[in-house]
Amino acid sequence: MIDKINGGGITAPLGFMASSGLGDIKGKGRTTPDVAILVSDSPCEAAALFTTNIVKAAPVIYDSKVIASKSKITAIVANSGNANACTGKTGIEACEIIAAEAGKILDTDKNSVLVASTGVIGNAFPAEKIIKILPDMAERLSDDGGLDFAQAIMTTDTRSKESAVIVASEKGNYVIGGCCKGAGMIAPGVATMLTFLATDATISSELLNKALREAADVTFNCVTVDGDMSTNDSVFILANGMSGAVIGDKEYKEFVEALKTVCDDLARMMAGDGEGATKLVTVKVKNAKTHEEARLCAAKIANSPLVKTMFAGCDPNWGRLLASAGASGAIFDPSKAEIWFDKLHYVKDGVIIDVALEKDAYGIMKKDEYEITLDLHAGSSSAKFYTCDFTADYVRINADYRS
Amino acid sequence: MIDKINGGGITAPLGFMASSGLGDIKGKGRTTPDVAILVSDSPCEAAALFTTNIVKAAPVIYDSKVIASKSKITAIVANSGNANACTGKTGIEACEIIAAEAGKILDTDKNSVLVASTGVIGNAFPAEKIIKILPDMAERLSDDGGLDFAQAIMTTDTRSKESAVIVASEKGNYVIGGCCKGAGMIAPGVATMLTFLATDATISSELLNKALREAADVTFNCVTVDGDMSTNDSVFILANGMSGAVIGDKEYKEFVEALKTVCDDLARMMAGDGEGATKLVTVKVKNAKTHEEARLCAAKIANSPLVKTMFAGCDPNWGRLLASAGASGAIFDPSKAEIWFDKLHYVKDGVIIDVALEKDAYGIMKKDEYEITLDLHAGSSSAKFYTCDFTADYVRINADYRS
Repeated sequence: MIDKINGGGITAPLGFMASSGLGDIKGKGRTTPDVAILVSDSPCEAAALFTTNIVKAAPVIYDSKVIASKSKITAIVANSGNANACTGKTGIEACEIIAAEAGKILDTDKNSVLVASTGVIGNAFPAEKIIKILPDMAERLSDDGGLDFAQAIMTTDTRSKESAVIVASEKGNYVIGGCCKGAGMIAPGVATMLTFLATDATISSELLNKALREAADVTFNCVTVDGDMSTNDSVFILANGMSGAVIGDKEYKEFVEALKTVCDDLARMMAGDGEGATKLVTVKVKNAKTHEEARLCAAKIANSPLVKTMFAGCDPNWGRLLASAGASGAIFDPSKAEIWFDKLHYVKDGVIIDVALEKDAYGIMKKDEYEITLDLHAGSSSAKFYTCDFTADYVRINADYRS
Repeated sequence: MIDKINGGGITAPLGFMASSGLGDIKGKGRTTPDVAILVSDSPCEAAALFTTNIVKAAPVIYDSKVIASKSKITAIVANSGNANACTGKTGIEACEIIAAEAGKILDTDKNSVLVASTGVIGNAFPAEKIIKILPDMAERLSDDGGLDFAQAIMTTDTRSKESAVIVASEKGNYVIGGCCKGAGMIAPGVATMLTFLATDATISSELLNKALREAADVTFNCVTVDGDMSTNDSVFILANGMSGAVIGDKEYKEFVEALKTVCDDLARMMAGDGEGATKLVTVKVKNAKTHEEARLCAAKIANSPLVKTMFAGCDPNWGRLLASAGASGAIFDPSKAEIWFDKLHYVKDGVIIDVALEKDAYGIMKKDEYEITLDLHAGSSSAKFYTCDFTADYVRINADYRS
């Protein structure tokens, strides 16, 4: 049985502690914490997904090697304000210095420390600002520190994003918790933002890796804010085994379900808090010829600036939905297509059922959250994508991002 | 020798006449013409490119058949305000009725008439409004009517778009002229908007078709405003042979050059007049591994909302350029990449040359028009893309499009 833990996050599982500190990483006089640390009481099995962008930030390059070495992980140091991307060799050195310093303070091997950064690309990375506040942060580690962690990694996010579940299994109870930051440069790739997940279950790194890929595929890889894939996108999961519950092949399915629940929560929060967004829209494509085509079609609609501005204007301009689907690469007969706004059947046989329905559709589109379903009548594959509206605020935020 | 004709457009070649009329096609009390007609004194060889969107507007379906039948073309009837897309069988019937009626009035076969529409998708198409004003428009046909034609097809365009050249060839002089409407839903596909081209040269339909594809590939197919491909995108070219200049295999190369000149003019005008745009940016990618990768990379940068909002904010946030290139599918070593803003060398070996250059880059980005060049150092293929900035006005225009 899987139950949500209200208010739970990255420190909800047993043996995980976190804290944050003010490093003023951006150097513009920030007054809220922008550095965070997550520490496990005992070394963890770890798995991660990283951006497929060939321009990879230094922490992505650094962590990939650590993860590949199968080293057990004890801590993650994360920061906002500077992405440590396009920073050349000194960027990689900064990761090494931070890991070594954190290892020293936490009395653990430097290879058991991961680093993660988000923020401006291309600026020199101030590792010394992080090192300076690490000792104090280590002293303030708390198993209530999840929210502090979630808040410190925010960039243009307007709210922190946390989720956790408790699973009652035959092998004993265990918890999965996590937090993420999203907002801009969100698009499906391997990973889509910074997400940190933790569990107190016991699980092999192979199964953990498999579960993470499976869960991300239908959650984080189905979120888009602007179709741009970041240099820093990473999803981490740590498993410290402190609950005593063991996940074997038999328990795997339930573990994946629980992980998907947390990831889906976080994915929806990311889409709903897209830069400048005022609403979360779920785009569902039904009865496509193949899963690939269903995904392509949902992604194309979810990424279309014309569709997303139509969401902002609450205008049920269904022609744009069909036009987007038609340009997606999915093969279907437009004269058979059907469209629903939530449960309102709006288009049948490729044309609007009744112009009088516009008012009802408008009413649905005024909501903070709704679904659009497109039935292609071309096969039996489905896919969904989470997206948001495209507002003048998105432009404002991104035109002035560095100022 | 190829010379531009100042102020020339679709009626610059011999024997082409045009006029426009007020049909109030959208039914919202429009007070400027929204229907246009182009007529040639003698039947023309014709070629056309149409959208590759599988959701095709009725005129695209109708015209494709006419073009495929190799019928000679005498006239094109175009309108703005309603795209006649997603209109089912009655949409196709509307095309037939208009062609038949125009054929009757112009005393020509209905199969020598093409139709083209642009505007809102999914609304019932008021063919009767066009038929009603056709006789009056036919009476007012003029070889000075090019500008009227160009203005009547505008939707969210802020200015009309015309271009023409005269070619002094050994076989005699000839003219190529054209006009287009663009603004929104502009993305590369086969065709990218409504473009009408005319020439008084004599050329076979095979060569004309080949020339049109060749010219469009490096002009219209390199323009993006928002990455959305319309249901109606069409490029037409008519050749009536009235100048007496004959284009054979020997003259073909110069003809293509002249056609490219006109198409490039129109393509740049389209990008510069993108919805809400305040500037035209040319994105050049140099030394990619293959032409396909050069194109992918230029297109990805030109379409990135994060890059386009950065253009709006005049912020030389070069990390976004590299991140976009890295997500494009082009293979390159980020640590070798170079970036120029116009002639300002800004990034070398994957990092900014000197932070002090930011002010100069800002100065360039404040201009109405500039170039960004990205050298991938991965091969020897190049490509360019025309794009514009992404402003809050784009969102406003598209959120409120139908109201």
